[in-house]
Amino acid sequence: MIDVGVVGSSGYTGLELLRILSQHPEINKILITAGRSKKDQMDDIVRHLIGKNTLFSCELNSREFDKCDVVFFATPHGVAIENAEHLINKGIKVIDLSADFRLKDSSDFKKWYGKEHTKKKLLKEAVYGLPEIYRKEIKNARLVAMPGCYPTAVILGFLPLLLGNHIDVGNLIADCKSGVSGAGKTPKSSTMFSETSENFMPYGLTGHRHWPEIYQELNSIISNSKTTQNPSSNSLGILFCPHLVPMIRGIETTLYCKLNELSQGNDIQKLYEETYALEPFVEILSEGVNPETSSVRGLNTAKIAITRPEYNKNSDSKYLVIT
Amino acid sequence: MIDVGVVGSSGYTGLELLRILSQHPEINKILITAGRSKKDQMDDIVRHLIGKNTLFSCELNSREFDKCDVVFFATPHGVAIENAEHLINKGIKVIDLSADFRLKDSSDFKKWYGKEHTKKKLLKEAVYGLPEIYRKEIKNARLVAMPGCYPTAVILGFLPLLLGNHIDVGNLIADCKSGVSGAGKTPKSSTMFSETSENFMPYGLTGHRHWPEIYQELNSIISNSKTTQNPSSNSLGILFCPHLVPMIRGIETTLYCKLNELSQGNDIQKLYEETYALEPFVEILSEGVNPETSSVRGLNTAKIAITRPEYNKNSDSKYLVIT
Amino acid sequence: MIDVGVVGSSGYTGLELLRILSQHPEINKILITAGRSKKDQMDDIVRHLIGKNTLFSCELNSREFDKCDVVFFATPHGVAIENAEHLINKGIKVIDLSADFRLKDSSDFKKWYGKEHTKKKLLKEAVYGLPEIYRKEIKNARLVAMPGCYPTAVILGFLPLLLGNHIDVGNLIADCKSGVSGAGKTPKSSTMFSETSENFMPYGLTGHRHWPEIYQELNSIISNSKTTQNPSSNSLGILFCPHLVPMIRGIETTLYCKLNELSQGNDIQKLYEETYALEPFVEILSEGVNPETSSVRGLNTAKIAITRPEYNKNSDSKYLVIT
Amino acid sequence: MIDVGVVGSSGYTGLELLRILSQHPEINKILITAGRSKKDQMDDIVRHLIGKNTLFSCELNSREFDKCDVVFFATPHGVAIENAEHLINKGIKVIDLSADFRLKDSSDFKKWYGKEHTKKKLLKEAVYGLPEIYRKEIKNARLVAMPGCYPTAVILGFLPLLLGNHIDVGNLIADCKSGVSGAGKTPKSSTMFSETSENFMPYGLTGHRHWPEIYQELNSIISNSKTTQNPSSNSLGILFCPHLVPMIRGIETTLYCKLNELSQGNDIQKLYEETYALEPFVEILSEGVNPETSSVRGLNTAKIAITRPEYNKNSDSKYLVIT
Repeated sequence: MIDVGVVGSSGYTGLELLRILSQHPEINKILITAGRSKKDQMDDIVRHLIGKNTLFSCELNSREFDKCDVVFFATPHGVAIENAEHLINKGIKVIDLSADFRLKDSSDFKKWYGKEHTKKKLLKEAVYGLPEIYRKEIKNARLVAMPGCYPTAVILGFLPLLLGNHIDVGNLIADCKSGVSGAGKTPKSSTMFSETSENFMPYGLTGHRHWPEIYQELNSIISNSKTTQNPSSNSLGILFCPHLVPMIRGIETTLYCKLNELSQGNDIQKLYEETYALEPFVEILSEGVNPETSSVRGLNTAKIAITRPEYNKNSDSKYLVIT
Repeated sequence: MIDVGVVGSSGYTGLELLRILSQHPEINKILITAGRSKKDQMDDIVRHLIGKNTLFSCELNSREFDKCDVVFFATPHGVAIENAEHLINKGIKVIDLSADFRLKDSSDFKKWYGKEHTKKKLLKEAVYGLPEIYRKEIKNARLVAMPGCYPTAVILGFLPLLLGNHIDVGNLIADCKSGVSGAGKTPKSSTMFSETSENFMPYGLTGHRHWPEIYQELNSIISNSKTTQNPSSNSLGILFCPHLVPMIRGIETTLYCKLNELSQGNDIQKLYEETYALEPFVEILSEGVNPETSSVRGLNTAKIAITRPEYNKNSDSKYLVIT
Repeated sequence: MIDVGVVGSSGYTGLELLRILSQHPEINKILITAGRSKKDQMDDIVRHLIGKNTLFSCELNSREFDKCDVVFFATPHGVAIENAEHLINKGIKVIDLSADFRLKDSSDFKKWYGKEHTKKKLLKEAVYGLPEIYRKEIKNARLVAMPGCYPTAVILGFLPLLLGNHIDVGNLIADCKSGVSGAGKTPKSSTMFSETSENFMPYGLTGHRHWPEIYQELNSIISNSKTTQNPSSNSLGILFCPHLVPMIRGIETTLYCKLNELSQGNDIQKLYEETYALEPFVEILSEGVNPETSSVRGLNTAKIAITRPEYNKNSDSKYLVIT
Repeated sequence: MIDVGVVGSSGYTGLELLRILSQHPEINKILITAGRSKKDQMDDIVRHLIGKNTLFSCELNSREFDKCDVVFFATPHGVAIENAEHLINKGIKVIDLSADFRLKDSSDFKKWYGKEHTKKKLLKEAVYGLPEIYRKEIKNARLVAMPGCYPTAVILGFLPLLLGNHIDVGNLIADCKSGVSGAGKTPKSSTMFSETSENFMPYGLTGHRHWPEIYQELNSIISNSKTTQNPSSNSLGILFCPHLVPMIRGIETTLYCKLNELSQGNDIQKLYEETYALEPFVEILSEGVNPETSSVRGLNTAKIAITRPEYNKNSDSKYLVIT
């Protein structure tokens, strides 16, 4: 039984985290804090989770946090950079749900998030929190940088193909669609009901903060695959186009890529099923089943369907991967 | 002033057509008929359009239709095949909004719509009703086959690039998203509120009826372009992936393609603006403006935005076109 | 640990029941069956509940059902009438979620549901399954008739006031609003996304099947209260007006009534809090808190807020009760 | 042909007004201004209305406004109080869509809007802009105070009954439901998509700003009816309960009242049809037709349905009126 702290408990990410933690059998006590919300509001926001007798709200700089075993940050970027080190030095494991420790190259952080990264040593140490790739490292890490929503979908979708050098990595496309809660809880004109409902739109076409994260992780997978067998392979190129869907929650990603010639005879459905056979949070759908975002609402699960279209008259070597 | 008839006035397409016709200054009288709906229901459905004193409902086989100048079919496929010839022979112009005369190759019609096409002569004569390509032919046609919703978006999006041989036509991708009314008015489990709301999903991944239509028209544009200059060009290959969006109306299409080497220095934004400068129903958005489906709700307008992403580290020769 | 059966597992009610049962610690095995859906489809529909190793699908008339401890009916009306008796005679407790055994007067059943009730003896025996009123009877019952959605909200809302003879029962008003899933899973024009989204409407104004159920139960509460103290009280009169809200789930009920003169000095908030103090499924909101349907989504909880408006210039003796 | 000005053109009310004005055949020129939005944004917001060559944006204190024939205020409350007098003194007709001149009693304004009313003389002169009651006065007025959204629905609903002294005015109930755009364009937590979608809630239960407006106008109608015939009639009492519906636009109001004994034999449907026979913006629905908000979307029309429920066992003298 462990004690955990959640910094930033009133945002959509923080609340979802609390919902999961409050049902977790191994957790003894949950400390919560939320910068923007006053204590009363906080109590109101998490009221439906109380009664489990596990929630105690306090200030971020309270000594109480120093007694936790694990502290989560579900804060805007910048907060974990400021506050994580102190906790880590006390021997507390920090799991950061924000973007602060995702980009290994601090100049990328500056470019996409507009701030100098002041904890480069910690940045180097942080483990990217995707268990399908870094399970072992996560277990031993002092600092885990949890992936963004879009990167999770894109990386899991391409992973089996990249591991085996099956595709032309120079021409990847990720057409992504997200519900409105992904834009966060701060009121903005663009997320008001009257602007969003009955509307669908692309955004971030010239570049989105999740692109460098996707690029970094896909590139890392490619580098770690046996490229000696495939020395002439393209350097990575990926188009990433996010869209806003008039629904509260859910992400759907349609990925497009082209099989290498040597891999065109392979059974891709089987490849996916085998790659994820032991993964509890990834489900490979049967051929012909369409993934619906509503079927993963409130779950940790990513569903993947693979289609290899054959309607083009030239033999079709392309296929789709969908989360 | 002309008299028009509308066969199939109670579906979403028919009602939208009636809405436009009832406000049209050149129309004298509108005859309507609707197979499935009884006369009373019909009156109820179009009540908001009455008062213009132009609507008269009657049977499809009524002599009244023979006096029209133009007859529209807004019917399920098969109805126009059965009924158009009789009207055309009387000298009445027929505009078919269904799929009956879109596919020039009758074996395609059989393959994708499951019926033998019994009017192959008419099929040959029919003009594809996209004014941006066939304006002159439409004016003189006896039978106009109006494009499907997805094909309209995809063809208008690629047209300027295909006309000038600017892109690699072997690797086109159309990621399309449609509101629910596109699925028609017949109650189905998949279009019920409780199944569709708060949900987003791809469908038709292994092949959708609009694919052969898109293929036919893109191919026709390519063939008519000066291919002598570009003899080694790829044969057409296009992936088409439709998705269902939890909104009533609207289509958004994200198109992906790769510029030919010779065209990489071109000003694509200008190319689009010039191509559509005189077209009343196509609007090219300024660079950086995101197209929103809500901004064309209830309009005939297609909005196109062009983005040439430059975030990939290798020089980016790909770009997006969005309707 | 008990074994349960669920007849009609593929409707919205049946699925919700399965979701609750599959997480229930006291349940060993769950037998399911669904008339309209084929076995394969059934497996698909409940797939997300499998893995608990508790679901076995079989035919309704299978001997397997005879071994259950409890059988639920989540079927259209008429099915439980046909099938419940056989199970009850085997000593199996039957809990009917349909309308079959709710109306004590079989002529009411015939009037509102259009069928002769063929099990009048069972009807007499059935206990109305609202634990806030009939907890003791439910425990001992062989047949429990679960309340309709609207009646639950209306009865719980008025209960504390009726128990103490606090209001003018001749002039009750229930203005009710329901999400679309309340209309069931069978595709109908009226529940299609394109007809329902961005729309709000009243329906059933001249009479709705839930009215006689509401009337019966409110009347029963009134009769059981100490009416000797209040012999001249009005006979019950209640207006019931349901509305359809463009959301999937949730019911909100706004109740209007007038305090009796003797009760105008009472603390109504306290009355409600005391009445429901021990009830796990009813929550009385603090004064000034607005009940939101989203806050009870997926829960068994009914939230009630009481307001006593004082803006009318004559002293206001009316108030609202809201679920 | 007249020139008009619109102060506050970027809010939902202002934009809707511009949409109507830009299609109006009697209008020559439209001057627009919007406080919060910069000029560029303004151009962007109204771009779809340009091309009619009628829009010119300028500052509110520009001399250009002094040349208008009519100036509309579609502003937050307070702006018209500050700026209307100057224009009126120049002989310009002012039509105020805000709440500034609706409440005749300036102490009501202070109580419900929190500001001292500094133009009491103008307030006295202002005409309440509901043409169904004040058509003649509106034509001659220098200052017209347009009704709020809820009051319009409630007043039109009760008007025919009040004019003829048909109902018990001491016990009126207005259960109102509004789409989200009614809350205005300023981003607030309560109107964000993720908070509003899939949610339904009452609000303003202890008192809403539109209540005094409803009370004032209903009371005025009652006073002007021949009360000499009905000297003992109750003083007005009306409960007003607004709710928020997860849709962008539309208001539905369910009104409850009780017929006086003398009026119980009357044909209420006919009363309504006769009262509104010549009114272009009010439509009385046939008996049994449910009013749907989607059927008036984008229109000026109010639809009213009357139901006289007869399901209660005591003879039912109550009925509903619905907009």
